[in-house]
Amino acid sequence: MSHLSLGLAGLGVVGAKTAELLMSQADIWQQKTGKKLTLTAVSARDRTKDRGIDLSGVDFEEDPVALAHRGDIDVVIELIGGSEGPARALVEAALASGKHVVTANKALIAHHGQELAKLAEQHGVQLFFEAAVAGGIPALKVLREGLAANHISRVTGILNGTCNYILTEMTQTGRDFGDVLAEAQAKGFAEADPSFDVDGVDAAHKLAILAALAYGEQIDFSSVNISGIRSITGTDIAYAGELGYVIKLLGIAERSGIRSVQPCLIAHNDQLAKIDGALNAVAFEAEPVQTVLTTGPGAGAGQTSSAVLADVLDIATGRGGLPFGRFVDTLGPSAHVPHDPEERRYYLRAMVPDRAGILSAITSILKDKDISVESMLQRGQSEDAPVALVMTLHPARADAVLAACDVLTASDFINGSVLALPILDRIERH
Amino acid sequence: MSHLSLGLAGLGVVGAKTAELLMSQADIWQQKTGKKLTLTAVSARDRTKDRGIDLSGVDFEEDPVALAHRGDIDVVIELIGGSEGPARALVEAALASGKHVVTANKALIAHHGQELAKLAEQHGVQLFFEAAVAGGIPALKVLREGLAANHISRVTGILNGTCNYILTEMTQTGRDFGDVLAEAQAKGFAEADPSFDVDGVDAAHKLAILAALAYGEQIDFSSVNISGIRSITGTDIAYAGELGYVIKLLGIAERSGIRSVQPCLIAHNDQLAKIDGALNAVAFEAEPVQTVLTTGPGAGAGQTSSAVLADVLDIATGRGGLPFGRFVDTLGPSAHVPHDPEERRYYLRAMVPDRAGILSAITSILKDKDISVESMLQRGQSEDAPVALVMTLHPARADAVLAACDVLTASDFINGSVLALPILDRIERH
Repeated sequence: MSHLSLGLAGLGVVGAKTAELLMSQADIWQQKTGKKLTLTAVSARDRTKDRGIDLSGVDFEEDPVALAHRGDIDVVIELIGGSEGPARALVEAALASGKHVVTANKALIAHHGQELAKLAEQHGVQLFFEAAVAGGIPALKVLREGLAANHISRVTGILNGTCNYILTEMTQTGRDFGDVLAEAQAKGFAEADPSFDVDGVDAAHKLAILAALAYGEQIDFSSVNISGIRSITGTDIAYAGELGYVIKLLGIAERSGIRSVQPCLIAHNDQLAKIDGALNAVAFEAEPVQTVLTTGPGAGAGQTSSAVLADVLDIATGRGGLPFGRFVDTLGPSAHVPHDPEERRYYLRAMVPDRAGILSAITSILKDKDISVESMLQRGQSEDAPVALVMTLHPARADAVLAACDVLTASDFINGSVLALPILDRIERH
Repeated sequence: MSHLSLGLAGLGVVGAKTAELLMSQADIWQQKTGKKLTLTAVSARDRTKDRGIDLSGVDFEEDPVALAHRGDIDVVIELIGGSEGPARALVEAALASGKHVVTANKALIAHHGQELAKLAEQHGVQLFFEAAVAGGIPALKVLREGLAANHISRVTGILNGTCNYILTEMTQTGRDFGDVLAEAQAKGFAEADPSFDVDGVDAAHKLAILAALAYGEQIDFSSVNISGIRSITGTDIAYAGELGYVIKLLGIAERSGIRSVQPCLIAHNDQLAKIDGALNAVAFEAEPVQTVLTTGPGAGAGQTSSAVLADVLDIATGRGGLPFGRFVDTLGPSAHVPHDPEERRYYLRAMVPDRAGILSAITSILKDKDISVESMLQRGQSEDAPVALVMTLHPARADAVLAACDVLTASDFINGSVLALPILDRIERH
């Protein structure tokens, strides 16, 4: 009977759940892999904290990097988090010491995935990070292995459960962003500092990883255009609904095109429009398979453990492969473009005083950028407060729309910023 | 540079597409696997047929089994089809000769998967069959590898694109089964002899494979309760719609429970209710991940080739593993039960003469089996022709409902057979 010895760093909820499953179901892992999996050592900030698991037979290392240097560990599981500091130091040291690494760390992979994959190649070890993208959904395995024979043209994803939960609640209850966020924080669905989630950074980490895998390119986190959901109001969601759309925070990566994370209007009968609450989803458009969509829970201790353990079982079974599905030196530069080159319809919303002449001033600014208005909605009147003026625009390029929004936002008759969201009438199936 | 030499048997649309992709994109396969993939020999019934591909540099074997005996072939791709005959002979001979096998043959795996997996184990080779289930969706990879760390409790699938296409058309246009089937045949979406599809056999092959993988059990095709969609009328679909449901042909495999392929009523807002047309979908309910759903095209030459080639690339990359995720000798007997043990609501439809006393006769028969009626719909009157009487039943066990249907069908006041379909109010998420 051969063995596989594991070291685990980071005993937060995910780490504790992973450790518990590793130990409690050792007989099942043995049946599936033919190997006895042993949790040999762990590392965490606080040794004494009660995590509801019995770690009495497991060594404890104060310094996580010490796991990388132990001769009795084959695989290091990194669940510390963060793109720098101890997580990065541990993963680098582990790979350099010839140990396989499994990590759930999207920031680390989005920023340093390339160097780390190179290090794994050089030392002939595996580096897997299924849990870094879309939580419990085996999205990276589907992309890298299940669709390995395809030419991917577009990846579209709902990649942040917190944002999708907030937008779903706003849609179903008509409440505003701040209100729903506060409730989500109270329930533990959103962090005390929600910036990483609601500003789109977390989704962008995942999108950068997906784009690199889909297109055989170097990871380029800086190429992702990011806008979050703070600017979405209940009014926007209500108007979008009247027009037959729902607003979702979508990550989109097109081959030789845009890589963006931004709120979009999608038709209410689109499959992605039906992904509600904290669910994630990733759709791959590809030739010859056409569109394959996967959906499931995007976060949670059990879900993340499921992905982490799948990577561990792949390693135990000898299901190897390159982290990005190709040798690092064959990865090309990212073929992203700075602005979405596709002409699309847009949803535009401005808060304006309710008085004559405003509409013509706005349409005139749009006309200067060759943008024409398709439809207009304004309801509610107020002499005191600005009211929402909502328009849909005929197909236009993103750069023109953004330039027009800048002019509008700077004009003295508009309160606050003008919001422009692309309308994805149909996620075209290539 | 290492090589991988392939032999391919069966040059129908799938075989021709697979051969074309293998040859035309050889450089991409080399980038991804580090190996040069060569199509060395093919076998097909008709050597001279024009398939739109240039096979001039490829050897031709009259007898497919000859591929298994060539010393210059590493992997045999079986795309002949059928559970017996040349397909079985080829796969057995190839495995016994120490060659890896990739097949799209669901009937072969559903009937002989076990012996073949044992043969693969004994000879230390791979046997992969991703294309056998759900076409272009990498459902088996998701189950066997992506969710390897999970305890699966239920697998629910839309597994036959022809049936889903017909039911979707019936739902959207109000037409009857025969009419839509004839159109589907004319368009090439359904076979001239549609029995395998519309009677549920094809879906049952796939369900048997999924159940074996999900529960670590021996494949037991005979354990699947099968009923197809021939008995579904436009009236059923219309009434189901009024009740808030759609009718889908679902394959369901529960751990220690039912394995069935049958038309079911599912709530119109369930994710599976939204899988339309020729799409397939498979939902896995599992602990700790909860529910992961995958959807995509279930058939087609490109889609099937995508899955076949993914298996070939796994082999080329050294991503091995056991065909059923465990050693064959550790697979237990199928834990299926003959009838669904869950109490469920049912949809019941009988064609009855429009006259007094019928309803009380029916409810009395139901009462004898301890079944009570929840709601009743009867519209349209006719003195000449029987009319549809539709009921929903309070939760009852399948065996009681079936027994009541037998009595009703045998009674002289009912025309034809009584139809009973389970109502899956919500596919509960474990």
